Amino acid sequence: MPDQLQELKTRLAQISDLRSAASLLSWDQETYMPPGSAQVRAEQLATLEGLAHQLFTSDEMGRLLEDLSGIVADLDPDSDDARLIRVTARDYTKARKLPPQLVTELARTTSAAAQVWATARREANFAMFAPHLEKIVDLLIQKAEALGYDDRLYDALLDEYEPEMTSAQVEAIFAELKAEIVPLLQAIVANLDAVDDAVLHREFDEKKQWELGLELLQLMGFDFERGRQDKSAHPFTTAFSPTDVRLTTRIDRHFLSQGLFGTLHEGGHALYDQGISLALDRTPLCEGASLGIHESQSRMWENLVGRSRAFWRFFFPRLQAAFPDQLADADAETLYRAVNKVKPSFIRVEADEVTYNLHIMLRFELENDILERRLKITEIPEAWRAKMEAYLGLVPPDDAQGALQDIHWAWGLMGYFPTYSLGNLVSAQLYEQARAELPDLEARIEVGDFVPLRDWLRERVHRHGRKFTPAELIERVTGRSLAAAPFVRYVQQKYGELYHL
Amino acid sequence: MPDQLQELKTRLAQISDLRSAASLLSWDQETYMPPGSAQVRAEQLATLEGLAHQLFTSDEMGRLLEDLSGIVADLDPDSDDARLIRVTARDYTKARKLPPQLVTELARTTSAAAQVWATARREANFAMFAPHLEKIVDLLIQKAEALGYDDRLYDALLDEYEPEMTSAQVEAIFAELKAEIVPLLQAIVANLDAVDDAVLHREFDEKKQWELGLELLQLMGFDFERGRQDKSAHPFTTAFSPTDVRLTTRIDRHFLSQGLFGTLHEGGHALYDQGISLALDRTPLCEGASLGIHESQSRMWENLVGRSRAFWRFFFPRLQAAFPDQLADADAETLYRAVNKVKPSFIRVEADEVTYNLHIMLRFELENDILERRLKITEIPEAWRAKMEAYLGLVPPDDAQGALQDIHWAWGLMGYFPTYSLGNLVSAQLYEQARAELPDLEARIEVGDFVPLRDWLRERVHRHGRKFTPAELIERVTGRSLAAAPFVRYVQQKYGELYHL
Repeated sequence: MPDQLQELKTRLAQISDLRSAASLLSWDQETYMPPGSAQVRAEQLATLEGLAHQLFTSDEMGRLLEDLSGIVADLDPDSDDARLIRVTARDYTKARKLPPQLVTELARTTSAAAQVWATARREANFAMFAPHLEKIVDLLIQKAEALGYDDRLYDALLDEYEPEMTSAQVEAIFAELKAEIVPLLQAIVANLDAVDDAVLHREFDEKKQWELGLELLQLMGFDFERGRQDKSAHPFTTAFSPTDVRLTTRIDRHFLSQGLFGTLHEGGHALYDQGISLALDRTPLCEGASLGIHESQSRMWENLVGRSRAFWRFFFPRLQAAFPDQLADADAETLYRAVNKVKPSFIRVEADEVTYNLHIMLRFELENDILERRLKITEIPEAWRAKMEAYLGLVPPDDAQGALQDIHWAWGLMGYFPTYSLGNLVSAQLYEQARAELPDLEARIEVGDFVPLRDWLRERVHRHGRKFTPAELIERVTGRSLAAAPFVRYVQQKYGELYHL
Repeated sequence: MPDQLQELKTRLAQISDLRSAASLLSWDQETYMPPGSAQVRAEQLATLEGLAHQLFTSDEMGRLLEDLSGIVADLDPDSDDARLIRVTARDYTKARKLPPQLVTELARTTSAAAQVWATARREANFAMFAPHLEKIVDLLIQKAEALGYDDRLYDALLDEYEPEMTSAQVEAIFAELKAEIVPLLQAIVANLDAVDDAVLHREFDEKKQWELGLELLQLMGFDFERGRQDKSAHPFTTAFSPTDVRLTTRIDRHFLSQGLFGTLHEGGHALYDQGISLALDRTPLCEGASLGIHESQSRMWENLVGRSRAFWRFFFPRLQAAFPDQLADADAETLYRAVNKVKPSFIRVEADEVTYNLHIMLRFELENDILERRLKITEIPEAWRAKMEAYLGLVPPDDAQGALQDIHWAWGLMGYFPTYSLGNLVSAQLYEQARAELPDLEARIEVGDFVPLRDWLRERVHRHGRKFTPAELIERVTGRSLAAAPFVRYVQQKYGELYHL
């Protein structure tokens, strides 16, 4: 290995350690940190992130990458080293394009905006938030211009979360999806009462729910020697290395889905992070391929597995043993139907599989209009209501349940929402492939044996980390490029049966 | 404020943030980290500590301190700024004296030695550990030579933990102490059965013990908005800022003292860390004045308060309410006597107030002989046995209970042990002063009101952090220099009564 490659890895390991430390500080902030230390913690995080950025964008790093660009051609293009150099050079180029003042200004603006957003949402007062959003959009446009793009501003922002994907591609896939989902939803809505989910809203002891969650993680093949689950107000997963992956959950005594599907969802993310090859640890390749690919893993375990009939044939007897009184009148089919109830609603995070992507499309379309300045900030609430009515047949009673519901814009995240839907589509496409390659997949799930699926995902997806772009990875695993068709087939078949369509 | 002072503070804040992050990583390692991540965590810690050291010993830092040395004379010598410059310059000079290779070599050697020590202790095999200790002693001598000293090698090492104290001073104080303690102990030993501690060894539910511990911390004035308690194999306290102080405890179902006095001890450390003025946060002054002063706080709450008759008059009814069956035949006096039972034993960490300092003197004398090369490494076990017999009248049956019992030497810590005894002496001297200034101190304790003592300590000791040297601080608070007499008076009076001497 040439000296420069060793030097590159040493520097990247140091930067990775700083970022892992920052992730631990963030994890701690959400789990165990005493509340009186929030301000000090923000300063500690800013120091670690600032140092990591400074080390990564140094001139020495640029020189090293330039020296190494010469030797990449001599390496196997799919080798860890070749991919490491390529991905690092790409990250470096992007990081250097951003003027430090813009980064600081965005951090300062979004930090203030997040505070105002919380109050504005509580008071359902969009006007209070609007000037902050105005400023954020200005800065995001500057950011997109600094990063550069071929076709649209939006491409530059999307690329942060979904490398090498374009808005035009997203648009085409979303159009295909919308054409199928909107009529499906209309048919379901005409028959909403066909499914009843009252059984989920009984009283379920938190400790028992927690223990069932741990048992499921164990069965999924989550390695508790290299990870743990804790509680937090908003569930999330974070990794400091494939040897230390932490997920959190939130349990609702009066709603079974909260903890159960939260654990399956975060468990999917966590298996991805645990499955990345240790050879990639402490490098920029030791992450998921993109947010969309990461989300495909969480959605697969949450929905394709956790909301399947096979899963409930296995899981219902265990759940009933834990809650015999609450579930005395139920069976596996009752639960299977209940967890798949479709109901158009105002709030994205509570949406079912059929309506969820419509929430995303709405945001994607609005974000494009906002960034292209076709839609004024003050016009957002009205545009939101119009699209909600068109896609979901509902008009939110106020902006707290409308344009103010998500924190993402306050955090400066535009171009991020599409990754949620891409995750849904990728999960279905990968799962079709898994079923084709593992003919007894559902039979295994029916007896609670989830490890074949985990192993297949680990071999085909997880271990590669960020070596391949999302497009490359999907092509490698399924032999095709990303499409809406597998997801459409899945929901049409499943919900067609559930709602007698 | 001159620009250089602002620049110094900015740099020190960055270094402090890195060190706080490292402390969080260490805390996490002992509390929540999954076991499979130990190796990766060691690398992350090495990166953070290495970066902090690199930033602190930079040439720019030296230039800043040199520029600022000119303005110190214009400042109030007791002002935060003057003290900050002085202490930072002292730390800088010391840090620059250590050759980086020596630091690395010590880190590598002690890391390996700590592993071997664990096995050697398990197998009671000193010969296995000896070559590692040999190498450590070599490196410590090099370290002492690099740091420099006036009189003895030991001074250079002691100064790391107890700034500006000399071995000669320790020796003089220890001689005074030994002259009084050894005969006191002999008198007690002739009458050992006068105190019975069987009541502490009954069965006490862990959850109830945990809750009582939290209640005590609350009464001591520990602020749970700015700190927390967790469990770990070895109790410790760490702070990432005065706004975030964390202690840990360990509970033994069959021995009440473990959790109770552990919480009081760590609670004493934690109150110190919470009490440091926020104006000193993110600077090198935001620490205890020395290990000895820190230990004085833990020992005061553990022993002077927690093993007092006044405390038990308050605490016994609460303890009995939690454990009515176990304590049906006991009263406050039973417990007061039990927790003060004296018993010569092999193991330092289990020693009572009378014998504890003899364990420390033994180590202090051996360390001096080892560093001065008067005692060969291979001769340590025999020398240990001889001193144990002379001071405590016991000969350990093997080296696991003798020279291998503490991990300190494996970690390269020589010059550290005296701080434990200094803590005991300082605690008694400060407590005498507190009683003189707060005439109703014991009456307050008897009703469970600990806040007057906490507030007195905060005002006189805690808030200053590391602004004053230990000697300055003791002189400022008590009007005298450190002496053994207050501690001697305390134990003679207390144990004379308990053992009818």
